Amino acid sequence: MNFKINYKDSTTDARSGEIVLSRGVVKTPVFMPVGTLATVKGLTPRELVDINAEIILGNTYHLMLRPGEELVSQFGGIANFMAWHKPVLTDSGGYQVFSLAEQRKITEEGAEFRSHIDGSRHFLSPERAVEIQSQLNSDIMMVLDECPAKEFSKTEVLKSLQLTQRWAERCFLAKKEIEKKQHNVDFSKANFVWKYLKASEQNLFPIVQGGIHLDLRKESAEGLISLDAPGYAIGGVSVGEGHELMREVVEFTTPLLPTKKPRYLMGVGHPQDLLMGIAAGIDMFDCVLPTRNGRNGGALTKNGPINLKNACHRDSFDPIDDDCDCYACQNFSKGYIRHLFIAREMLASTLTSMHNVRFLISLMEQARIEIKNKTFASFAKEFMRRYNKK
Amino acid sequence: MNFKINYKDSTTDARSGEIVLSRGVVKTPVFMPVGTLATVKGLTPRELVDINAEIILGNTYHLMLRPGEELVSQFGGIANFMAWHKPVLTDSGGYQVFSLAEQRKITEEGAEFRSHIDGSRHFLSPERAVEIQSQLNSDIMMVLDECPAKEFSKTEVLKSLQLTQRWAERCFLAKKEIEKKQHNVDFSKANFVWKYLKASEQNLFPIVQGGIHLDLRKESAEGLISLDAPGYAIGGVSVGEGHELMREVVEFTTPLLPTKKPRYLMGVGHPQDLLMGIAAGIDMFDCVLPTRNGRNGGALTKNGPINLKNACHRDSFDPIDDDCDCYACQNFSKGYIRHLFIAREMLASTLTSMHNVRFLISLMEQARIEIKNKTFASFAKEFMRRYNKK
Repeated sequence: MNFKINYKDSTTDARSGEIVLSRGVVKTPVFMPVGTLATVKGLTPRELVDINAEIILGNTYHLMLRPGEELVSQFGGIANFMAWHKPVLTDSGGYQVFSLAEQRKITEEGAEFRSHIDGSRHFLSPERAVEIQSQLNSDIMMVLDECPAKEFSKTEVLKSLQLTQRWAERCFLAKKEIEKKQHNVDFSKANFVWKYLKASEQNLFPIVQGGIHLDLRKESAEGLISLDAPGYAIGGVSVGEGHELMREVVEFTTPLLPTKKPRYLMGVGHPQDLLMGIAAGIDMFDCVLPTRNGRNGGALTKNGPINLKNACHRDSFDPIDDDCDCYACQNFSKGYIRHLFIAREMLASTLTSMHNVRFLISLMEQARIEIKNKTFASFAKEFMRRYNKK
Repeated sequence: MNFKINYKDSTTDARSGEIVLSRGVVKTPVFMPVGTLATVKGLTPRELVDINAEIILGNTYHLMLRPGEELVSQFGGIANFMAWHKPVLTDSGGYQVFSLAEQRKITEEGAEFRSHIDGSRHFLSPERAVEIQSQLNSDIMMVLDECPAKEFSKTEVLKSLQLTQRWAERCFLAKKEIEKKQHNVDFSKANFVWKYLKASEQNLFPIVQGGIHLDLRKESAEGLISLDAPGYAIGGVSVGEGHELMREVVEFTTPLLPTKKPRYLMGVGHPQDLLMGIAAGIDMFDCVLPTRNGRNGGALTKNGPINLKNACHRDSFDPIDDDCDCYACQNFSKGYIRHLFIAREMLASTLTSMHNVRFLISLMEQARIEIKNKTFASFAKEFMRRYNKK
């Protein structure tokens, strides 16, 4: 993996660059659509390419349960499996173990839990998390971390980040062990000629934790930097602490991370948080917001979010956002899309998800231009003024 | 409307030609995907164009209930509303009144019924059916007909087709009245520049009924031919009578219809029935089969239908049909699509519906080639041999 910073803003810490991965080049800052179960809900890979998605995220927790990493591995990994011929990042499964799984028990060894689907028992250790992601054959893997619960005391958060540090170290050791092995997949019976059989290189990012405690964020960051990883993530934000506390944590933590490596703010996708993160020097984001909200009628526009199910859109000839270049906005009216939502037609979710993802990707594209022009601060201010004005 | 027959088969009554409508040219024999609520479920108009759909069908019954024909009319008709810039055929709503609606009461005047959605009261007369379809602005409209119930005695079927005849006559009168009026739609506030604001010409097809009674089919056909319509449909087939009885009715009725006008076999979509219909001289077909089955895992292949949910497809690297040129078959394995079905992902329905519709459209394309080469009979025989072989 190679990361090159091409431009820096003058009045903020924003930067734009390129991450070169074995499946392709990703321009930063980048928004990664979430493809939980090896599909970005409602969109074809062809549609994702059309809206200029350059990298997507897959969820290890979901994929280990369904269809199982062995099956994905038989198909040459998640990218081949889902016919997405660009880079993929997989998370470690940690976050979902803490937010979705049942009867979880955390020990030094790892996390034992029951599947939220069928109650089956599973065990995720740092070594297993890396092994699974190796089988998923993502371009970027994440270490298994513990996401501290909101009600944790500061002492508990400290203990948790120390566990996350030890797990991160075990993940890096596990990765070295796995790289010694050969992964050979027999495609002799395949009718397809897949274009990219394998990511020739997988990169492992550790995750800074520490909750809302800045001194603990510092301790976590410093511990992980010693691992000399190819990139670093900030986790445990956007978990209900609110925009201002998130801003404080991100603005404090980001400068602690190595300047020359990509910085990834996990699970963040509200436009105001994306712009805040970019200004703080973040390069990568992911969030289910554009697709999850999109399936429920929530659409992002330059004038703020709207709900397409509302009766006020019934007669509207206008597109969701008249500045948007996506297929949905170039062809369909809000009145039509509202009808699709009311009639519970699949196309409602597809068009709105497509628009929402495109909206965030466009925001990243514009941010890159503004960073190059050293005008990011005024752009972000003007964007937010219009976005928040009702 | 203009219909031109370009080629005739030598050993069957199959013919291929072109229907020139104000929104485009439709090559026949043609399969029309069903877009019940102004969307072909799971597919974007762009995807429909990609699989070479040339005309789609909209359901008057569904659209009059949701979103209502007035709203569709405000958007310039169904084609503009759904951003489909090719011809549209609408049915009259009759079939759904008989199959879906509640508490229906049929009188000479028309059909009173309650909506299957909210129980609201509605009335559909021949005049209303034409008025609604005029507002939907389809290229081809259908007359309101009574679809006789399976348990009807022959006398009841006779009474029913006589009612259908009187209703057809009233539909043609209503159409003349409506054409005198001006339909002006104010698009001055529209942000879109719609490419095709209006079908400059709407064509009305009557529907031959008569159940499984050949003499009644003859009486119905003869009565309707006196209307000198631009095209004729055969209705009341594929309602549970079985393939052989359907064949008997179609092979008997089709030659009774004017040779120089398009003949439309309503609601038929099984490959064997399509080939039978083409051989009998049918030009147009529609059916929900490819999309409805597609949403439930049912896929059409040259070797017969398969269910993609079955465990036998779990590890399959193969596409649904290795001869198919659709996006689904060119990129995705059965193993992946099965995973999507098991995980209840929308993309499962999209890919399988896309393939199924393409499969039937490809079958029509191949049929046109075989008719031109005067080899349709042997083609159909060989297709069915492979399709039915297990």
